[in-house]
Amino acid sequence: MAGTLYLIPSALGERPWTDYLPAATQAVACRLRRFVVENAKTTRAELKRLGHPLPLRDLAIEQLSERLSPDEIGRLLAPLLAGEDVGLLSEAGCPGVADPGAAIVRRAHALGIAVKPLVGPSSLLLALMASGLEGQRFAFHGYLPAREPDRQRRIVELEGESSRLDQTQIFIEAPYRNDALLAALLAACQPATRLCLATDLTTAEETITTRAIGDWRRLTLPKLDRQPTVFLMLG
Amino acid sequence: MAGTLYLIPSALGERPWTDYLPAATQAVACRLRRFVVENAKTTRAELKRLGHPLPLRDLAIEQLSERLSPDEIGRLLAPLLAGEDVGLLSEAGCPGVADPGAAIVRRAHALGIAVKPLVGPSSLLLALMASGLEGQRFAFHGYLPAREPDRQRRIVELEGESSRLDQTQIFIEAPYRNDALLAALLAACQPATRLCLATDLTTAEETITTRAIGDWRRLTLPKLDRQPTVFLMLG
Repeated sequence: MAGTLYLIPSALGERPWTDYLPAATQAVACRLRRFVVENAKTTRAELKRLGHPLPLRDLAIEQLSERLSPDEIGRLLAPLLAGEDVGLLSEAGCPGVADPGAAIVRRAHALGIAVKPLVGPSSLLLALMASGLEGQRFAFHGYLPAREPDRQRRIVELEGESSRLDQTQIFIEAPYRNDALLAALLAACQPATRLCLATDLTTAEETITTRAIGDWRRLTLPKLDRQPTVFLMLG
Repeated sequence: MAGTLYLIPSALGERPWTDYLPAATQAVACRLRRFVVENAKTTRAELKRLGHPLPLRDLAIEQLSERLSPDEIGRLLAPLLAGEDVGLLSEAGCPGVADPGAAIVRRAHALGIAVKPLVGPSSLLLALMASGLEGQRFAFHGYLPAREPDRQRRIVELEGESSRLDQTQIFIEAPYRNDALLAALLAACQPATRLCLATDLTTAEETITTRAIGDWRRLTLPKLDRQPTVFLMLG
């Protein structure tokens, strides 16, 4: 009998685990001994925060390579075929959503391994809920192009599509480029387009503000530099 | 000082709350006395499950109308402007995501009321995590057209877009039409397109299976009739 691949969300920021995980999710994480993870260091910190009963050195924590090969995926899933349960964790938030874990899950399905997603925090979902923007239709686009004129062109394209489909557009940026992306959005979008900035979600510094582009232009802008931010737009 | 609008996710199925909510979410729900909700009956059941310390008849639970008017939104938010905290709940899952709560949140932002999203279950997010499909780009489309030929045409359109953008397409259906939607997907899609069916999430009956359309065609199909199901497709 094969083991189960548990998908374990992890902290978005420094908080006690009871703030962001159900007891059932913590209990699963604390009974596993084998993990496949995006970042071994943040996973060790997370397992410590969760109070894993075993010394961390007794756990098998395997970090995903930057470029996951099919062979590596097979090797990482082999313990499951031998009957062992495995936990998959990303650096922050939900494994497989805006991060590299999905390839592992896809192969697990192909091998007939049971996949069990556990409840926990997702910055994208928290931001969408709290934005007040359209939640009946939305799309996550990952990162926009970092350079001009590609970035402006992509912003205008996403805004037009949002307006046409009544669809919330969600995207992120490398935190050190957040201020540049905000400036590009204010330069490129129509005044009536709504923009939500959701920063430092779940932490004491959390701020979530939705305003029309025209209003954002009249105000002192928040400093987003190096602060994890989700951008949401509805044209 | 205005109150805070708390966005409180609720159960997807019958489970003890420690399975699907962090203690911090339960604690907020149990200290509030005023709620704005999609369905008063399911909210009362949820608050009972959470062990709200007050008799339910002492709580103010206001159900959203089918067609929310601007006046009604203003009336529902008035207690917040008077300093009271309010909880927003949908029938199941996350308020404002695939449900009518977003209009309330949008107005709260316009009035400068703080909005605080709490962690909890979302069937869309759990399904996406567990599907193994593309999590770097995805879109939720709500309901597809219920009638042919519109449904087939929409399926083919979504499949083409998914393949072109490498984007997971997520959609739902009224539970009594799930089997018809599955049949339409199997008839319309390319054999190599992957389809994930995520049914009864978080419950004891949870099943999540991702297969190529060609493989689904060769197998006995699951009965999805009246079982809440998220459909995910990657062309």
